[in-house]
Amino acid sequence: MTSDLCLYELVLDNGCSVSPFVWRTKYALAHKGLAAKSAPVGFGDIPKVLGGTFKTVPILETPKGTIGDSWDIAERLDADFPQGPNLFGSPAERAMARFFDAWFSGEVMRRMFGIYVLDIHNAARPEDRPYFRQSREARLGQPLEAVVAKRESLLPALREALSPLRTTLSRSPFIGGKEPNYADYIALGGFLWIAAVNTLPPLAADDPLLAWLNRGLDLFGGLGRDPRLKRLAA
Amino acid sequence: MTSDLCLYELVLDNGCSVSPFVWRTKYALAHKGLAAKSAPVGFGDIPKVLGGTFKTVPILETPKGTIGDSWDIAERLDADFPQGPNLFGSPAERAMARFFDAWFSGEVMRRMFGIYVLDIHNAARPEDRPYFRQSREARLGQPLEAVVAKRESLLPALREALSPLRTTLSRSPFIGGKEPNYADYIALGGFLWIAAVNTLPPLAADDPLLAWLNRGLDLFGGLGRDPRLKRLAA
Repeated sequence: MTSDLCLYELVLDNGCSVSPFVWRTKYALAHKGLAAKSAPVGFGDIPKVLGGTFKTVPILETPKGTIGDSWDIAERLDADFPQGPNLFGSPAERAMARFFDAWFSGEVMRRMFGIYVLDIHNAARPEDRPYFRQSREARLGQPLEAVVAKRESLLPALREALSPLRTTLSRSPFIGGKEPNYADYIALGGFLWIAAVNTLPPLAADDPLLAWLNRGLDLFGGLGRDPRLKRLAA
Repeated sequence: MTSDLCLYELVLDNGCSVSPFVWRTKYALAHKGLAAKSAPVGFGDIPKVLGGTFKTVPILETPKGTIGDSWDIAERLDADFPQGPNLFGSPAERAMARFFDAWFSGEVMRRMFGIYVLDIHNAARPEDRPYFRQSREARLGQPLEAVVAKRESLLPALREALSPLRTTLSRSPFIGGKEPNYADYIALGGFLWIAAVNTLPPLAADDPLLAWLNRGLDLFGGLGRDPRLKRLAA
């Protein structure tokens, strides 16, 4: 049954998977012991696949239907594949992962985007770059080059924003405790997004988060390991 | 058995309970359906009770021993009183509540402290004020009056720091989902701390967090309702 799954994932010019939201789904599938075929798409392809039904990736084709949105996918995986370990052990754990997502997206990924948006552009397939530039500049209100002009000065605030993670990971090996849970996959997805493109490492060389990152990238037979990834620490 | 519990709690000159950590424990006891006698202490009393074994409140006396630290108490309540509803449904939920605490303490309560430290001083029992001033000024490196001199200018950052809560609570009535969990009690404790003392409401009148706050204060027969509390919104 697992070979009936197909995951549409966003790729760069070098073939690296780049969407932080696709990474969440890749880890979620691995957590449940599910394999999926990969359907790589570029930024400009998303409106062309599956009749343009979905505006974003991940998109997961399953025998029971096609699902977009990483949260919808995560919840459907638990519902449709109960034989694997649950992603969410309880409604409360899922609600807390939702809070974690709100924090990580708003406080961490938003800052990452402002620092790495030009790196993402430059690593995209050449045919995707005009669309990426146009859509992101419209959202940001200025040229990508202007957004990142003083990006070194934005690194301290990014590193500071990660403080609650450091506190948590000083007590337990994973955000989910002794074992990783969906919050770990959310955070790993953000760092893998940046690892795919960065020309400026986000973390200091002695950041204690690196030990957790290494544990996370090693999960599931090294799912997050790829020699094409850039260093995350200076 | 429940009448054998005694909670040492920090009180102000008007008798209001003020410690955000004691409030977590009061909500945790209520969650489990446990009643406890109250032993009110002032800031200067903590070293004098129970032989000075504990440096902070809450302290909970139980038939199985005396426990300090709100996290230790929460975990022991689940272990020693399994007949009540669990505070933590799973180790993952507990780990996520730990993350929530790291975020709330570092990003929200730290900012609250800088805005309200003089209000706390002024609301303390007169005999506690010299100790409170001396210990807090030693930690802050300046007079309390200097810490709060420009406190209005610090309100926007406090309100902004609460963004992940607003995102979460736009989807569900409580941080824990449909029902409150320990993360809700952590956050309610922080707001009750400020409600006990503030002379400058922390929230804007139209803050959507107010609906959640009202739900939270109404829990367990209005545990957080007290006519002596100040308004939390302008």
